[in-house]
Amino acid sequence: MHLDHIGIAVSDLESAISTYEKLLNRTCYKREVVAKQSVETAFFKTGESKVELLAATGSESVIQKFIEKRGEGLHHVAFEVNDIEEEIHRLKKEGFTLLSETPSTGADNKKIVFLHPKESNGVLVELCQSID
Amino acid sequence: MHLDHIGIAVSDLESAISTYEKLLNRTCYKREVVAKQSVETAFFKTGESKVELLAATGSESVIQKFIEKRGEGLHHVAFEVNDIEEEIHRLKKEGFTLLSETPSTGADNKKIVFLHPKESNGVLVELCQSID
Repeated sequence: MHLDHIGIAVSDLESAISTYEKLLNRTCYKREVVAKQSVETAFFKTGESKVELLAATGSESVIQKFIEKRGEGLHHVAFEVNDIEEEIHRLKKEGFTLLSETPSTGADNKKIVFLHPKESNGVLVELCQSID
Repeated sequence: MHLDHIGIAVSDLESAISTYEKLLNRTCYKREVVAKQSVETAFFKTGESKVELLAATGSESVIQKFIEKRGEGLHHVAFEVNDIEEEIHRLKKEGFTLLSETPSTGADNKKIVFLHPKESNGVLVELCQSID
């Protein structure tokens, strides 16, 4: 399990890409719309891990709701695992609650699942596994 | 510049270490008090990067204030740079504001400096450089 990326909720994706290009001193290497989650994402490589900017594409997006409640900022942290089903099983046995029982398809060609933040000190934790 | 660690503000360090040992399926490899910042930290290796738990050791701690305002959760993201002074110079030229003009000594034997979150979409960004 390694840190795959951090997700940052932003209001204006174009403006945020410009900011993070300056901040990280590199260009955004990928943009992707995840229609099912009503988000548009933009990625930056930061070593082994990535920074993902997420902007809502509709008012029903969880990113829209997050920003309305807390403002822009750090939204989640994602850890890459080798076998997401095995990891879900292990974490449930440890007493963690998952936001969904089965993985869905997220950005960056990954199977993803989220843990309930109430059990991880307020941190929204994503588990992800690359789809071969 | 690569993602060095994420910092998570927690109320009870012992309890949070236990949680993250289960979540990440590994043991905490280092604990460290940073007296000047009134925090105690605990680290987990997550590939090239780390997860840092931060708990306040006094009411004047920024971690205490953060938790009072926002609750526990993701506090900052840190990027390791080769030359922190050069990077400070570059970012100031790009229009970013630093919370201090000169680096201080943080946990994990590093020179650190923070950028003002108003200019990075609400994200508190730390730059760090390992002290040889």
